[in-house]
Amino acid sequence: MRAVVLREGGLEVAEVPDPVPGPGQLLVRTLACGICGSDLHALDHGDQLEAMMRASAEMPESIVAEVLDLRRDVVMGHEFSAEVVDASRGDGSRREGDIVVSPPVLVAGTNLHMLGYSNSFPGGYGELLVLSEVLTLPVPAGIDARAAALTEPMSVGLHAVRRSGLRPGQPAVVVGCGPIGLAVVAALRSEGAGVVVAADLSPARRALAGQMGAAVVVDPQEEPVFEAWRRVGGAGSEPPVVFEAVGVPGMLDHIVTTAPRDTHVVVAGVCMQPDAIQPLHAIVRELRLSFVFGYDVAEFAETLNRIAGGELDVTPLITGSVDLDGVAGAFTELGTPGRHCKILVEPGSGRGLAGAD
Amino acid sequence: MRAVVLREGGLEVAEVPDPVPGPGQLLVRTLACGICGSDLHALDHGDQLEAMMRASAEMPESIVAEVLDLRRDVVMGHEFSAEVVDASRGDGSRREGDIVVSPPVLVAGTNLHMLGYSNSFPGGYGELLVLSEVLTLPVPAGIDARAAALTEPMSVGLHAVRRSGLRPGQPAVVVGCGPIGLAVVAALRSEGAGVVVAADLSPARRALAGQMGAAVVVDPQEEPVFEAWRRVGGAGSEPPVVFEAVGVPGMLDHIVTTAPRDTHVVVAGVCMQPDAIQPLHAIVRELRLSFVFGYDVAEFAETLNRIAGGELDVTPLITGSVDLDGVAGAFTELGTPGRHCKILVEPGSGRGLAGAD
Repeated sequence: MRAVVLREGGLEVAEVPDPVPGPGQLLVRTLACGICGSDLHALDHGDQLEAMMRASAEMPESIVAEVLDLRRDVVMGHEFSAEVVDASRGDGSRREGDIVVSPPVLVAGTNLHMLGYSNSFPGGYGELLVLSEVLTLPVPAGIDARAAALTEPMSVGLHAVRRSGLRPGQPAVVVGCGPIGLAVVAALRSEGAGVVVAADLSPARRALAGQMGAAVVVDPQEEPVFEAWRRVGGAGSEPPVVFEAVGVPGMLDHIVTTAPRDTHVVVAGVCMQPDAIQPLHAIVRELRLSFVFGYDVAEFAETLNRIAGGELDVTPLITGSVDLDGVAGAFTELGTPGRHCKILVEPGSGRGLAGAD
Repeated sequence: MRAVVLREGGLEVAEVPDPVPGPGQLLVRTLACGICGSDLHALDHGDQLEAMMRASAEMPESIVAEVLDLRRDVVMGHEFSAEVVDASRGDGSRREGDIVVSPPVLVAGTNLHMLGYSNSFPGGYGELLVLSEVLTLPVPAGIDARAAALTEPMSVGLHAVRRSGLRPGQPAVVVGCGPIGLAVVAALRSEGAGVVVAADLSPARRALAGQMGAAVVVDPQEEPVFEAWRRVGGAGSEPPVVFEAVGVPGMLDHIVTTAPRDTHVVVAGVCMQPDAIQPLHAIVRELRLSFVFGYDVAEFAETLNRIAGGELDVTPLITGSVDLDGVAGAFTELGTPGRHCKILVEPGSGRGLAGAD
């Protein structure tokens, strides 16, 4: 099959062996796969990613069999929807032609592999995938497979909000309105948050934050986000839950030194480099930092249901679409936040980078 | 009066004006005042302490009127017990001769001052203090004023455990067995923790941790603390609550990269310098960091009651006692963890640095 391969630190389109389904696995054809900030990180900070995966695998509690080796080829892509093309190794719960999504985890014997960060199995930046049938969820008829591909990143937002312990009506501040920040904004609305203040440097992303449910949207270069929060009445209420969704060095310290007393900061942005904070500032104001990652299967299924049921409209977030030949260019485009939010890879589309429609 | 003055980055014994009680204030004679690690920090990292207090005071929520200025004299000392010598400005609830303790906060008009870190009012490293009568608690007759002086640091431990959300029977790991780590160990016992694993480089402090209630005590140079925790059966149980009570750069990152998945890390150690962590490690294992500070009035009162009632025996923690002339030497001694835990300043004792008895 054709796939975009991460090879020697760069992306190239190459012919790679078709994946072969094992027992309990489905062969599927990729319909759409979102490009995630983590994939951009894998190019820029592959050594940190490898080191972290190695350290995690060495923990006594580790359940992941495979340690990513970036000296070998990797087909990334972990936000996918797909069509079943061979269900013969499955248990009969899915059929050829079904449209499915799945968390990017593959069960192979007693081992778990992270699809998109595996040397053994391809992710969604190729024409074909194998999926564990038991983890797949059917996408209801009539639902756009491109919208379904956003189940994964939107689940990250729901998980972050659930882990935050947000109480109904509690105010929230979202720092950074990339796909994860916007997923958090959407989840805050559905989980019953009070006023949501969101900040991003990009006008396009600020507009999307408003569309997804932020009551107040600010350019942090014009008004510091916590000043905006106080301006809209936050100072008289309980401390906000703050979501860090930028993931660049220094952002956490900026929040630590400016957040109100007793604030709970949920760290949803993935900062790959070592990052310095000033603990004394966090101590005297008794801040809490919760680092969050991924989602559970229930959160993933709930998110698909919200998209399928029309409660969660993700189409504004899809700002572009490319075929395999357009992936490298899309990575470059996403490297500097501009008009794009989520760019989907559609392997069979013959599409260069363009708007979504 | 005579006092130890922090002046131009050093400690010197000097004659300073007697403090004068205002409305609602008591004039008291210092009986005993513990030397706290934060006071050592104030000498070594005074610029960071000043910067943090300035930043805190500038926060819109700040209630502290005064910003510490280390270019001016400061009489430190915030862990004190004292005898009332003039109650004439009070409301009659305390009398001359009463032994009292108080959180180190002074209400002066509508302003709050942090005793021990104030340019306007002396802390406990002097012969006299003024205290807000409403914040004082009487020390019951027969209770050693030296033990009562430990109410303050032991309250810090109780507060840290309360903020941790520890459930009865939950295991805990305490990293660092200085006075704060030992206060945490003692509070873990009284709050009903499960097995407590404590680590410290110093044999003397490890022995004290055992006395205060740690079931397992390790030298981290011989066995990493989380390996010890797994060895005693922790791996099969819920994640431990981890208390960081060292407060030197790098310790938080060490915990972040080695703690089990889903661990709650309570940061009770006060690290004065910027400190780097690797967020990616915290993210993939969904760690939570809670920075804690101080205690509330109820926790302070409860701690005094435990000491007075004999439930909490703090006498093993008092390893030395000095008069004002011995304070500078005691600071030097405490700069390198050795046999000492808590050294008390007893202004009237005529004592050089010696053991507690």
